[in-house]
Amino acid sequence: MQFSINQKDLYQALNIVRRAVAKNQTLAILTGIYLKVNNNTLILKSTDLELGIEYKIEIEATEDGAIVLPANQFLNIIRELPSEKIKMSLNVDKWQLEIRCGNSLFKINGYDPDEFPSLPTVEASAKFNLPAVKFKEMIEKVRISTSKDETQPALTGALFEVNPDEVRMVSTNTYRLSYINAALKTAVSEKVEVILPGSTLQELSNLLDDEGSVEIEVDNNYASFNFAGIEVISRLIEGKFPNYELVIPDEFNSNFTADLSNLHSAVKRVSLIARLDANIISINAKPDLMEINSTEGSSGYAHEEVEIELTGPEQKINIDAGYFIDVLKVLKSDDINIEMIGPLNPLVVKSEDDMGKFIYLIMPVRSQS
Amino acid sequence: MQFSINQKDLYQALNIVRRAVAKNQTLAILTGIYLKVNNNTLILKSTDLELGIEYKIEIEATEDGAIVLPANQFLNIIRELPSEKIKMSLNVDKWQLEIRCGNSLFKINGYDPDEFPSLPTVEASAKFNLPAVKFKEMIEKVRISTSKDETQPALTGALFEVNPDEVRMVSTNTYRLSYINAALKTAVSEKVEVILPGSTLQELSNLLDDEGSVEIEVDNNYASFNFAGIEVISRLIEGKFPNYELVIPDEFNSNFTADLSNLHSAVKRVSLIARLDANIISINAKPDLMEINSTEGSSGYAHEEVEIELTGPEQKINIDAGYFIDVLKVLKSDDINIEMIGPLNPLVVKSEDDMGKFIYLIMPVRSQS
Repeated sequence: MQFSINQKDLYQALNIVRRAVAKNQTLAILTGIYLKVNNNTLILKSTDLELGIEYKIEIEATEDGAIVLPANQFLNIIRELPSEKIKMSLNVDKWQLEIRCGNSLFKINGYDPDEFPSLPTVEASAKFNLPAVKFKEMIEKVRISTSKDETQPALTGALFEVNPDEVRMVSTNTYRLSYINAALKTAVSEKVEVILPGSTLQELSNLLDDEGSVEIEVDNNYASFNFAGIEVISRLIEGKFPNYELVIPDEFNSNFTADLSNLHSAVKRVSLIARLDANIISINAKPDLMEINSTEGSSGYAHEEVEIELTGPEQKINIDAGYFIDVLKVLKSDDINIEMIGPLNPLVVKSEDDMGKFIYLIMPVRSQS
Repeated sequence: MQFSINQKDLYQALNIVRRAVAKNQTLAILTGIYLKVNNNTLILKSTDLELGIEYKIEIEATEDGAIVLPANQFLNIIRELPSEKIKMSLNVDKWQLEIRCGNSLFKINGYDPDEFPSLPTVEASAKFNLPAVKFKEMIEKVRISTSKDETQPALTGALFEVNPDEVRMVSTNTYRLSYINAALKTAVSEKVEVILPGSTLQELSNLLDDEGSVEIEVDNNYASFNFAGIEVISRLIEGKFPNYELVIPDEFNSNFTADLSNLHSAVKRVSLIARLDANIISINAKPDLMEINSTEGSSGYAHEEVEIELTGPEQKINIDAGYFIDVLKVLKSDDINIEMIGPLNPLVVKSEDDMGKFIYLIMPVRSQS
C-alpha cells in the first residue's frame, strides 16, 4: 500500500469514520480504523458491531493494500501534521504504516486487516430517499426521548415508520414521548416499520448535513444510510414498539403560546434550584402569565413568570424540568404552543408546518405533598 | 441587607472571588462566598484557608448586612439572569437571600456570616510595587516547574526574592528548573525572600491583567497582592528553598537557535508516540538540523527534523517531552535559544531582554539502552 493524500482531506475522513470506532476494548482491532487502497480509492471503515461507517476518497496511489490502525493515535497524529501532502507506505511484514509529511516521519504499528470484521450488507427489502435536512430534524426531535434502560430494548431506540406518503418517527421512555410525522413521498410500496438504536440516531445527527438526500435501505436486521459519500450501517433493535397512539391525547382543555427563548431561560433558571432536589418544577398557567416554581427545598426556592395567552381554564402541573428543557433546546421556532388537560394528564408541546407535525408529551409527576 | 447591582458587574465579581472558594467540603461554609454591604459598598470574600480573595464594588444599598452563599449555586443563578438590574434583600431570620431580576425570583439559603473566617492580615514588614504585566510573565514562567510532591513542601512553590534593584523567581521539581530575574527597582530596603505556593501562582496568573501595577506586602507568614480592586492574600510556604545557583551551568559546549513554533509543533507530534511509553524523546543537534525521535516502542516510532544553526560540537540528549513542551508553550518570542553541554548535563533554554533573564533547565534522562 502506497499513496498520498492531503492532510485536510484525511483528517476530515477520519473524523467521519471515528464515530463508529468501538469505545470499549473487548476486541482490540475494533478500536482501530480499517484503511484499504484499491485502484486510487482510499476506503476507510470502522465498526463497534452495532454501527458501521464506511467512507471513500479518491487519492493518488502507486500500490494497493490494507491495514487497521489504532484510531485515537492515528487521528491525533494526522491532526497535528501541517496542512500538506502526506505520503503513506505500508510495511506488510510488520503491519506498520510509515507516514511522511514535511520533516515528519511516523511509523505506526497496526493490525492485520483480514482480522477486521466485514460490515454487514443490507438485503434491501425496502429502498427509499429522504431529504437530509428533514431527516436530521426528525432524528433530533426523537433522539431526546429514547430511554437509557437496557431492560426494555425497544425503548432505547426510535420507531421508524415509512409509508408511501409519510414518514414517522416515535420514541418514548414512558415518562415522555416524541412523535414526528412528515408528509414525504417515498418509493416504498409497503409500510416499513423498524426500530433504530439511540446510538445510531446520535451518530446520524452528528454526520448529516443540511444538504442533499439520504438513500436508505432496510431489511429485517439492518438499515443503511448513504449520504455525502458516507455509508452508515446500523443493526436494528428487535422487539415490538409500544402502542404510542393510545397515549397521545386527542383533545385538550387549555392551550397557550409563549416566547420560546424567554420560556427556555426561565425554565433553565428554575432548574438551577430544582435540580438540587429531584428537578421537578410546577407550572401554573394563568390567563396572561405562566408561573414556574421549584419546590421550597433545603437549598432555596425559585419562581419565574413568563407572559402567555391562555385559552381555556387555568392549569397547574408538576413535571421534570430536564424533560422540558430538552424540547425547548430542540425547537427552532420563535414561539412554543402548549396544550394541557389537567394535573394528571400529560403536558403537550405541539408544532406543525406544511411538512408535518411534531408532538412532545411530558407525563405529570404526582404532587410531592 | 438590601441593595441593587447590575447582573454583569456581580457576575464579574463572583468570577474573581470564586477562585479562592474551597474545593473540598471539610468546612461547608468555605464552599461559600461571603457578601457584606457596608455604606454603599459590596464586599465579596472567599478563602480555602491557604488563599483568600477580597473584592469590592460600589452599589446602591438601602440597608447594610452580610451573608455567606453557596458559591456554585449563586454563581450559576447570576450567570443565567438577564443582563439587568438585580435587587437583593436578606431575610436574617432564615439566612436567606431574596434575588429579584426581571420576572425572576430566587431565595437562596446561606450561612451565618459570623461563622466565616476572617482573612489574615499582613503585618507589612516589606511593601513594594511591581508592574502587573511583568509580574504575570514571571509567574507564568516559574509556575510550570513547581513540584506536585507534597513531601517536599518548599518545592511545591516558587522562591520569590525581592531586592532594591531586581526581582527574582525560581522553582524546581529537581528534574527541571525555572529561573527568572527582572531588573526592577523596588521600594524594599532589605532583601525579601519567601516561597509562594503553586496554587497562589496559578490564581494570580488567572487574575492579573496586563495593565497597572500590583502592590505587594509580605511578612513572615503571609503575602498580599493588591491590583485592579482585588486583594489576594496567600499563606507562605515554610522551609528552605534549595540552593539553585549550584545547578545552573555557567558554561556550555554548543548552542543553537530554532524557530519556536516549528519546534513546538515537532515536539508535540513526537510526544504523541513518546507519551504512549514514558514520554522520553531524544534530541540530536547536528550542524544545520535538529532531530527529535521517540524510542521505537510497541506502538510505533516518530522522527522530526527542525532547522537550526549549531555553534559547537554535535550534541545528543534524552529528555522528558512534557517538560520541553511546557517551556515551548510559555515562550512568546519567534525563536528559541538552547544551550547544551553533553548527554549527562541539563539542556538549557535561555532568553534575555533589557528587562531581565529567563533560564529553564531540563535534566537529562539516562539512555534507555
